[in-house]
Amino acid sequence: MTVSEFDLITQLFADIGAPRADVVLAVGDDCAVLEPVAGQQLAVTTDTLVEGVHFFLDVSPEALGWKAVAVNISDLAAMGARPAWLTLALTLPSIDLDWCRGLARGLRRACDAFGVQLVGGDTTAGPLAITIQAIGLLAPGQARRRSGACVGDLIYVTGTLGDAGLALLARQSSDVVLNGAELVACTQRLEWPQPRLQQALLLSPCVHAMIDISDGLFADLGHILTASAVGATIRLADLPRSTVFAQACTRLQRAGMAVEAVYDLQLAAGDDYELCFTIAPARVAECARMLYQLGCHCIGVIEAQRGLRCLDGQGRQYTPPHTGYDHFAGRAQR
Amino acid sequence: MTVSEFDLITQLFADIGAPRADVVLAVGDDCAVLEPVAGQQLAVTTDTLVEGVHFFLDVSPEALGWKAVAVNISDLAAMGARPAWLTLALTLPSIDLDWCRGLARGLRRACDAFGVQLVGGDTTAGPLAITIQAIGLLAPGQARRRSGACVGDLIYVTGTLGDAGLALLARQSSDVVLNGAELVACTQRLEWPQPRLQQALLLSPCVHAMIDISDGLFADLGHILTASAVGATIRLADLPRSTVFAQACTRLQRAGMAVEAVYDLQLAAGDDYELCFTIAPARVAECARMLYQLGCHCIGVIEAQRGLRCLDGQGRQYTPPHTGYDHFAGRAQR
Repeated sequence: MTVSEFDLITQLFADIGAPRADVVLAVGDDCAVLEPVAGQQLAVTTDTLVEGVHFFLDVSPEALGWKAVAVNISDLAAMGARPAWLTLALTLPSIDLDWCRGLARGLRRACDAFGVQLVGGDTTAGPLAITIQAIGLLAPGQARRRSGACVGDLIYVTGTLGDAGLALLARQSSDVVLNGAELVACTQRLEWPQPRLQQALLLSPCVHAMIDISDGLFADLGHILTASAVGATIRLADLPRSTVFAQACTRLQRAGMAVEAVYDLQLAAGDDYELCFTIAPARVAECARMLYQLGCHCIGVIEAQRGLRCLDGQGRQYTPPHTGYDHFAGRAQR
Repeated sequence: MTVSEFDLITQLFADIGAPRADVVLAVGDDCAVLEPVAGQQLAVTTDTLVEGVHFFLDVSPEALGWKAVAVNISDLAAMGARPAWLTLALTLPSIDLDWCRGLARGLRRACDAFGVQLVGGDTTAGPLAITIQAIGLLAPGQARRRSGACVGDLIYVTGTLGDAGLALLARQSSDVVLNGAELVACTQRLEWPQPRLQQALLLSPCVHAMIDISDGLFADLGHILTASAVGATIRLADLPRSTVFAQACTRLQRAGMAVEAVYDLQLAAGDDYELCFTIAPARVAECARMLYQLGCHCIGVIEAQRGLRCLDGQGRQYTPPHTGYDHFAGRAQR
């Protein structure tokens, strides 16, 4: 490619997200210059999506751009932070202007949706990968850490679990056949994850500990338990299911799929980008209306006994065969 | 690999750089939480090193860790910012604990050298790549942009140019043979670049425009000229050369290397990580002692006529065959 084509790529990513008043200097110099409101703390996170690992080349570049931003926004949300700025480190094997334009559209959609501005970046040649780093703002003391869970807290999740995992399973296994509507709805969850930012900002003052579910509930709730030095029991029948997920699983179970496979989708498949949080029983009453309106479901309770216990529909203890996404185990996609 | 090995890798990168008072929460939650001094602006930059493009696998992981940090510190320095915090997005094809320990050692050396703390990160499976994002602090209005150059400004560079490029050329071309001392010194410049942070902080109040030289002087000074809507003339005989570079080039020229190849190393090979800056003639007198003590050399002057003109030893105009590193042109390393 010529230098002018390279410049063109750079320009594609130079002006993404509505200009924010706290951005002094955006893309185009050695650094971006930002002016946080005095007294605010910063929340900083980074996430990489790698081709062949987190996505396949047949995904639309627009969805990919959206997801690269969304997974980072989900981390900021889980901290109770308000997203502000992004940087993009993009590694491209070659130049495909149409593909890059699609990626830029997806980034733009996400930046507009979450009120963030892309302020800097680096484009390099190499195997396709997208690293976003996101910075958000927090009032001092308002960070919702993984370590805040207390014995007796109730455990809640937003939304529904397992949809994205089902889309991936259907793609990978010829035994798992979804109908058109199911495939569309579950693929939407996989490719266009919706970080629960508004819910997080509303819930944040009420919760003891919060995390986003990216590697699967079992692993991510496990991080809360480890960081808080507590344990928990959850009831698998209480894990919220979307209508399409419930319908597809009922049919697939009738056709021979084990109930354990359904549990696995909800516990360990990952890519849900819901929130998992704990809340003191004394605060549940005052927050009940909000919890209901935000579509949160209680799935269990924090206990002193370490470890995460899962009870199946008959109240028997269930030990999951997978405990969340293993980054190096060679599973086909994350 | 097992999950515990993955945890081990994560732990290797969890505690790098001396703890800073402005870090509320470092590695281990959804986000890091940082508390900048009220009234300070933030400078933010990101740079990726990709295996096979920016480095080869035979480089020591310790040098690689150092360089991944150093190239980002160089960007902060060029802005006049004081480095504070880093995040690391590391993509690994497989787990080699010894290699990862070496990388962590290099990251730690660089963090200690520049007073920064690694506060967050993401480890993914995939082709080897290292993305660092760095955040620095700046007094309001103190950012030294590329766009500040004025007609009549003198153009300076720190240190010497071409050493890293010569190391790379010797590696790639059997015609270019360096003696032991030359190879060691030039390879040191390539693999352990020293960002000119102290110089940048001292020079910053005096300069109109500043940039770090990563893609080669011709391209990077070109960025200043474009952003400032000016032009320049530089004299190639004034480009500072290290003793080993001068000695090696004299010998190589005697053996038939064209002088243009020497110019090319100093103008376009890149990886110098020196500073290029412009300064008003009226300020040169008061800064002369500092410029001398910091080892800065005047190489040219900013002019109204757009474009960058290079004059050779005989005062003739010289047009470089390469104008800096082209990220997608398939040159062997950057």
